[in-house]
Amino acid sequence: MREFDTIAAIATVLGEGGISIIRVSGSESLRIVDKIFKGKKEGSILNMKPYTMKYGHIIEMDSGEILDEVLISFMKGPRSFTAEDTVEINCHGGVTPTKRILEEVIKAGARIAEPGEFTKRAFLNGRIDLSQAEAVIDIIRAKTELSMKSAVLQSGGRISKEIDYLRNRLLETIAHIEATVDYPEDDLEEVTASGVKKELDEINKNINRLLTTAEEGKILREGLNVIIVGKPNVGKSSLLNALLMEKRAIVTDIPGTTRDVIEEYINLDGVPIKVVDTAGIRDTDDVVEKIGVEKSKEKIDEGDLIILMLDLSRELDQEDYEIINYIKDKKSIVLLNKVDLENRFNKNVLEDIDSKYIIETSAKTGEGLEKLKECIKDLFFGGEVKAGDLIITNTRHKEALIRARESLNSALDVLEVTLAIDLASIDIRNAWIRLGEITGDTVEEDIIDKIFSEFCLGK
Amino acid sequence: MREFDTIAAIATVLGEGGISIIRVSGSESLRIVDKIFKGKKEGSILNMKPYTMKYGHIIEMDSGEILDEVLISFMKGPRSFTAEDTVEINCHGGVTPTKRILEEVIKAGARIAEPGEFTKRAFLNGRIDLSQAEAVIDIIRAKTELSMKSAVLQSGGRISKEIDYLRNRLLETIAHIEATVDYPEDDLEEVTASGVKKELDEINKNINRLLTTAEEGKILREGLNVIIVGKPNVGKSSLLNALLMEKRAIVTDIPGTTRDVIEEYINLDGVPIKVVDTAGIRDTDDVVEKIGVEKSKEKIDEGDLIILMLDLSRELDQEDYEIINYIKDKKSIVLLNKVDLENRFNKNVLEDIDSKYIIETSAKTGEGLEKLKECIKDLFFGGEVKAGDLIITNTRHKEALIRARESLNSALDVLEVTLAIDLASIDIRNAWIRLGEITGDTVEEDIIDKIFSEFCLGK
Repeated sequence: MREFDTIAAIATVLGEGGISIIRVSGSESLRIVDKIFKGKKEGSILNMKPYTMKYGHIIEMDSGEILDEVLISFMKGPRSFTAEDTVEINCHGGVTPTKRILEEVIKAGARIAEPGEFTKRAFLNGRIDLSQAEAVIDIIRAKTELSMKSAVLQSGGRISKEIDYLRNRLLETIAHIEATVDYPEDDLEEVTASGVKKELDEINKNINRLLTTAEEGKILREGLNVIIVGKPNVGKSSLLNALLMEKRAIVTDIPGTTRDVIEEYINLDGVPIKVVDTAGIRDTDDVVEKIGVEKSKEKIDEGDLIILMLDLSRELDQEDYEIINYIKDKKSIVLLNKVDLENRFNKNVLEDIDSKYIIETSAKTGEGLEKLKECIKDLFFGGEVKAGDLIITNTRHKEALIRARESLNSALDVLEVTLAIDLASIDIRNAWIRLGEITGDTVEEDIIDKIFSEFCLGK
Repeated sequence: MREFDTIAAIATVLGEGGISIIRVSGSESLRIVDKIFKGKKEGSILNMKPYTMKYGHIIEMDSGEILDEVLISFMKGPRSFTAEDTVEINCHGGVTPTKRILEEVIKAGARIAEPGEFTKRAFLNGRIDLSQAEAVIDIIRAKTELSMKSAVLQSGGRISKEIDYLRNRLLETIAHIEATVDYPEDDLEEVTASGVKKELDEINKNINRLLTTAEEGKILREGLNVIIVGKPNVGKSSLLNALLMEKRAIVTDIPGTTRDVIEEYINLDGVPIKVVDTAGIRDTDDVVEKIGVEKSKEKIDEGDLIILMLDLSRELDQEDYEIINYIKDKKSIVLLNKVDLENRFNKNVLEDIDSKYIIETSAKTGEGLEKLKECIKDLFFGGEVKAGDLIITNTRHKEALIRARESLNSALDVLEVTLAIDLASIDIRNAWIRLGEITGDTVEEDIIDKIFSEFCLGK
């Protein structure tokens, strides 16, 4: 294990709550906390047993005054989150005590941790691989239970296991090729071009299988970006409210939630559906129409899914036709709203759109909303998504898989044309390197830094 | 100890952070968590040692799926915050995992806790008295280190000790009076009216001493409410920015802070100075003038301190005179701003205001700001406030002290007029009851409920 300095940070969300945690990690963590902690019983905490807690006070070093009443717990490395000796200080959950105690910990010799540095240590110390580390922040940011469960499985090494398996197969192939090429005189089982080809085809199949999950996976992790387009008064707000209603029941029962973060997501059978943030929509509800068709098109281009709302009780105009034409190439659902009013609408204009995705609704009465949800699932999820499925949720992993596939295809081309297995082995090694980027075995330092810099502080 | 049901709540601030804590308290807490926890090693946690931790997973009861990776810790009552058996579940600090785990805990048999219910249990179970319980939320809400230290001392029983001492003296006096009255034939030391009077005078002195700290104490706890009044362009925004600058250096170094809560406070040598919320001021900076003198007067009435800013480079008008006249009866400081420009100002109009509190400033260059701060301290704090001082910070305590004093004065009046010690004993008992409201010994249930309902969830 590499030797790092001892770091500290506030590990809980800062605000007014019951408890806050200041986490200290590194070989000096017990010695540092010992300087500022006074237990109920005399004596130092240096011989504290791992996985136990002590009650006491944090004492200001300069004045000797009591800063707060705390519980400290000790986790001895490597059996800790970072795999290093870790001390956690649980104090009263206010901004002032939490920040003051962190300051004392820093004064006592710790360095303030960078965002994600605890998880980075867990990775650098070899406790978890890079895909597991990435899953940690996915768990924290998960918008629905399904997203969370998928991230929990990833953090447990679900993807790592699959990738390690594929990399081992590639490595064996390379080893066989090299042995055949380097020691042709030896009595080794000869590796033939067709044998390698067969093996690479199989590995490619596995990669393709993983890649087919990537679209669903991305949505599971980041949410489906839904753009609702429609003229003023067509019922966009009613639709949003109807969709949000269910979600509200889930998220607003606990006060103190930072609602602006969560309220952008609707939970559709576990799939986070991101709608343009509600506050924004309420203010600029009609902006799309006001600023014209061009702006609508821009918005449409940003979405994974377009919901176009048309008013059954009015005739269409030139702008409507243009938008209808534009969304033909997109994943889109057309809502014919106000089904409860008199119909003045010529449905022929929608003939280029798959009728499966045209729904008569009344956002007011709720009619058609269930069908809308079925449609969304149908468009984006082959069947039910289960948390137990192995899903590629991370775009970085997807890209690595695509590049690995490219390398394998390139190797297959070489074998096709030349039958020279030694030439193919370069491409095979590249595929092996690409896959290693997912687990972090072969990833460059600046990519690691970038990944952890996107973590929150204290993790 | 009374027997309560088992309660649970999220004890940390909910949001995206490193760690969240779900706290479970009550005799069933271990059994409840045992239903949903699966440790690394087989076996239940029911025989877990107090003050130890275990690593494992929370398992969804319905599906058997893993919800999150957690650490659980166990504190056996009465050696816990609530004085009951308490289990804390440390999980990944996101909204989804935290809420889902709380849901499972509830499904497993706990009831969701009301705001402040954990601290209320600590009080009802006799671990802490009411003034200590109140200090818990004061620590969490403390705006400065000084406020926090004062609350920490209170939570340690600093006020309780003083009140208990005074109550015991009152009780002894009552006992002596009753013995003298009930058994005059006994060979007891006779209690005379003058003896009782002397004792009550001394207790009154102690109460008065406490009450003299109450103004400082209230400010320490709630902040000093400062209203800055002045015409447009007199320099109010510059003044605010200059004052806020220092505070910013303190509060914004950690991202994720709910800034709108904290930014209302300036830390003046440990004293929280509350200014009308900055966002508000930026929007309505000039509103006070626009809506006229009457509105200014209303604002002025809300403040503990008025800072009137006048422009040295302009002549005063009728409105200015009216405001100057109005603030004479208030604690106020007059800033003659723009000292760097040409003086067109007749200072004679300020002759009714103590010249100590008239300061020439330049909010632009910072001139006079130090003097302003000295002035504020001079007006509100006799000398330096020290955390070690016994200070009454809570208005509820102040009111109880005032009513206790009234009862004692009433007793003294009776003794003065009638010399009837048995008549005085009723008032003395009332004083004893009033003081008991502070520690909660003699407080009514609805007051207790009100106090804890103002706590945050999870505490």
